[in-house]
Amino acid sequence: MESTAPVSLIALLHGPDKPGLVARTAGWIFGRGGNILHADQHRDADANIFFQRIEWVPASDDLDKEADMFTRLARDELGMDVSVARSDARPKIAVFVSKIEHCFHDLMLRWKAGEMPCEIALTISNHPDMQAASESYGVPFHHIPVSKEDKEKAEKEQIAICREAGVELIVMARYMQVLSDSFIENCGCPVINIHHSFLPAFAGARPYEQAYKRGVKLIGATAHYATAHLDEGPIIQQDVAPVNHRHGVKDLMRKGRDLEKSVFAQAVRWHLEHRILTFANKTVVFD
Amino acid sequence: MESTAPVSLIALLHGPDKPGLVARTAGWIFGRGGNILHADQHRDADANIFFQRIEWVPASDDLDKEADMFTRLARDELGMDVSVARSDARPKIAVFVSKIEHCFHDLMLRWKAGEMPCEIALTISNHPDMQAASESYGVPFHHIPVSKEDKEKAEKEQIAICREAGVELIVMARYMQVLSDSFIENCGCPVINIHHSFLPAFAGARPYEQAYKRGVKLIGATAHYATAHLDEGPIIQQDVAPVNHRHGVKDLMRKGRDLEKSVFAQAVRWHLEHRILTFANKTVVFD
Amino acid sequence: MESTAPVSLIALLHGPDKPGLVARTAGWIFGRGGNILHADQHRDADANIFFQRIEWVPASDDLDKEADMFTRLARDELGMDVSVARSDARPKIAVFVSKIEHCFHDLMLRWKAGEMPCEIALTISNHPDMQAASESYGVPFHHIPVSKEDKEKAEKEQIAICREAGVELIVMARYMQVLSDSFIENCGCPVINIHHSFLPAFAGARPYEQAYKRGVKLIGATAHYATAHLDEGPIIQQDVAPVNHRHGVKDLMRKGRDLEKSVFAQAVRWHLEHRILTFANKTVVFD
Amino acid sequence: MESTAPVSLIALLHGPDKPGLVARTAGWIFGRGGNILHADQHRDADANIFFQRIEWVPASDDLDKEADMFTRLARDELGMDVSVARSDARPKIAVFVSKIEHCFHDLMLRWKAGEMPCEIALTISNHPDMQAASESYGVPFHHIPVSKEDKEKAEKEQIAICREAGVELIVMARYMQVLSDSFIENCGCPVINIHHSFLPAFAGARPYEQAYKRGVKLIGATAHYATAHLDEGPIIQQDVAPVNHRHGVKDLMRKGRDLEKSVFAQAVRWHLEHRILTFANKTVVFD
Repeated sequence: MESTAPVSLIALLHGPDKPGLVARTAGWIFGRGGNILHADQHRDADANIFFQRIEWVPASDDLDKEADMFTRLARDELGMDVSVARSDARPKIAVFVSKIEHCFHDLMLRWKAGEMPCEIALTISNHPDMQAASESYGVPFHHIPVSKEDKEKAEKEQIAICREAGVELIVMARYMQVLSDSFIENCGCPVINIHHSFLPAFAGARPYEQAYKRGVKLIGATAHYATAHLDEGPIIQQDVAPVNHRHGVKDLMRKGRDLEKSVFAQAVRWHLEHRILTFANKTVVFD
Repeated sequence: MESTAPVSLIALLHGPDKPGLVARTAGWIFGRGGNILHADQHRDADANIFFQRIEWVPASDDLDKEADMFTRLARDELGMDVSVARSDARPKIAVFVSKIEHCFHDLMLRWKAGEMPCEIALTISNHPDMQAASESYGVPFHHIPVSKEDKEKAEKEQIAICREAGVELIVMARYMQVLSDSFIENCGCPVINIHHSFLPAFAGARPYEQAYKRGVKLIGATAHYATAHLDEGPIIQQDVAPVNHRHGVKDLMRKGRDLEKSVFAQAVRWHLEHRILTFANKTVVFD
Repeated sequence: MESTAPVSLIALLHGPDKPGLVARTAGWIFGRGGNILHADQHRDADANIFFQRIEWVPASDDLDKEADMFTRLARDELGMDVSVARSDARPKIAVFVSKIEHCFHDLMLRWKAGEMPCEIALTISNHPDMQAASESYGVPFHHIPVSKEDKEKAEKEQIAICREAGVELIVMARYMQVLSDSFIENCGCPVINIHHSFLPAFAGARPYEQAYKRGVKLIGATAHYATAHLDEGPIIQQDVAPVNHRHGVKDLMRKGRDLEKSVFAQAVRWHLEHRILTFANKTVVFD
Repeated sequence: MESTAPVSLIALLHGPDKPGLVARTAGWIFGRGGNILHADQHRDADANIFFQRIEWVPASDDLDKEADMFTRLARDELGMDVSVARSDARPKIAVFVSKIEHCFHDLMLRWKAGEMPCEIALTISNHPDMQAASESYGVPFHHIPVSKEDKEKAEKEQIAICREAGVELIVMARYMQVLSDSFIENCGCPVINIHHSFLPAFAGARPYEQAYKRGVKLIGATAHYATAHLDEGPIIQQDVAPVNHRHGVKDLMRKGRDLEKSVFAQAVRWHLEHRILTFANKTVVFD
């Protein structure tokens, strides 16, 4: 994070496991004079899949060329799915929000404080309420109302705005509309959602009311990638807080806000730091 | 817990809320020269129910008479459900266990260490494996095999043994048989179970396998009163521990054992200390 | 918190324990037609001190008179230190801040969201940096530079501003100046500070550096009342987060910010809800 | 942990960082036909030290020769401190205990349950109390009384017994004697201690009393390697639990027992699984 640190490359790979993968990637980097800063591996023994996050400072100044060469090694010679990013990249992200604002402010303040290596390019909301707040952070605001009848049209507009701006990640900061399958398929980038329960418990609407009614002693929050199946995407992070009989639904909501903020922020940060691989509806998080 | 502390009475009450309940119970005790050690109240605003745990040292040496008089006040004059216990009571409990032994040993060792104000009167198991262990703690062991065909007969035998021994609480220390509705109705005392997930997530069989498959980032354990509905009884206590992609099912089981032990022990201790009231399938825990 | 809830009175009392205190306060309220909403007691067995928080809705509309009468009962007849507050009171608080801004924003946003029953009357800072932020929340900002030479004068000015505005609580949102004994004695209200370690470990300057150097596996934050002894006042709340060898000082700081925010906010909210009594350099928190 | 898993080698290395270390170790293993199961690295940027834990299944059946060859590579060619262990090794450990027995039983039961890859070779105690318990687990018991006058002699006897038995790790399961510098220097193996506070807070005697007096809201436990400086050795693991004003010293002790057990067990297990490197009075734990 030091401004004086040299720019590094970060590769995320996964694919069929076979002997020598660690040696091949590390050896290639070493052979080209690179200096490995971090190398984390995981193998899923059941599925025989190899996962790696490897970060290095190349000897060459032409980072894009190095990234390209590594991609070819990993993909063509090692048979891996691979992506390589520069540590100084600041991908554009879009924040979707409705009226509930704690996750929105929390994300913006962390971004302003330098915790989030990205550019928050725009805010999209189905309500006009957050316009002034968004603009006070210097982030353009798009009000796109959504009703049952025009949801398809609204989603097309959302996608158009994101594509136009070159958005590489959409984060739903308590956006209270369910995204359609078509949106997920066509938006062109990953979508991170925060759900206010410890999934798979209390999926769907009004999780705090559900939790209160069931009488649980812990409430939770779950950040996950959105998929076409509501609240069933790969889980990135979860946390819980104790509650007791003295806590009504409003108390659960208040306590839950703190969980939602920290879990959401952590998931977004991990994504931006290229720490997450997904496979078989689960995540590998190299933290 | 001090051996030199005077014996106190502990009343648990609940019933329709109305003004003056705190003043009436406290005033009655004060009027008879008693010294209140603790008084905790809760009101369920939705259901208009009043809950109280009140502990006091009566002036009179005849504690049973005082308990009886308080019971009549609470029941007849205040319209409450009420139970009164002596702090020096050591109710008999029965431990049900199968082959998995960590909760069993943990409970026995805590009992031996003085953490559990009870007498562990007997162990019942559907397997013979734990006989020597149980007897090494000085606890008689009953082996009652259970098969699909003779489950009804086995349960009758279990109930007969518990009733014969004067058991006031049954605790299921990872007992791997589902108790029938008939057992719950006829056993004559509460039953505490430990389930190895954060209910309501992963109810039923093989919760660690379920959790592994879903890719959750927290595993949990839940202690609850057993009811006729499997894994749906009032929750007493829950706890969780973080897991990640490096943890296989066996690791979840190992980490889960620690959760199960502490959650189970805490629930049993709270019950024995008369800290738990149940209402509307939820618990009020005065801890 | 419901706008439709009737206004209640909340009394905090403590003093020498004697039989009948619970009955006397509850009986007095009941006798005057009041409805007790909550009553929590604690007795310090070592010091023989009784502590109570009791909240009730009086029958009379003249709440100030009821508060006054209860005060006389508790003080004159029961020999207690006592304070009584109205649930609809919104005491004025002053926020002291330097340049580090996360606790400041967090507090302001919680206040705006309705979590903090107070009026944030003013911000005081030894730096000008937070002026625009403070004013964007509608809170007047006072820049009072502090140097070694003029610290006494600066503190007098701070006190004058707080007294002028009728401030009833000062909160130090990572204010990086040590308050003098004289300030604490003369400011006329309690002061809550957030320290970025689990006290008593790593008191004093640069706690994250200290923690890093010692190689602890948990970092913490502690909210406490400020006294004349730096970092030694009564502890209100503490929390920790796990760290490991991968975390440098900057990571500890980032993780610590989340702890500081939540611990600080909880302590301030508890104070504003009249949940805290202090005795013998410790706190009783009726949460 | 599977009995059918092939035996692997686990190397722990650390030394001056330089480019190519990951590639060199991985390349060497790959070049000899080995299959890397895990490889974790860390570099201490301040001190420029490289740390690695690497586990692999060699192609050759002669594991001891492979271990020897790897040791020479790491030591002689790469300039590293290195140790290599077989995954099927079961090092002998000695348990030191006094009269407090919860950590002792917990460790023994985990060992019996297969959680601890070691052979518990013997128990040493300054009291005779735990003899029957130790022997019930099949572990020989040595009673070596320790008094101020004969401490030196007692320690020599302890060391002689451990050396005679080939002990490779000493664990202090709440052993209530301070080991002398001479013991630490001469016992010939690492020593793991459990301290009942979150160090560096409340070092020394009676930490629960200290914590109670200070009024902390969290109590803790710390497992660390013992060094000549009491309670100042490298910290392996720490955990905490919340407490409040209702908890007396005895409650802190009861809650603390659960912390001590889990923290102690985790530290011992990590050591036995070759997950810990120490440097500059800190630990790197590859978990």
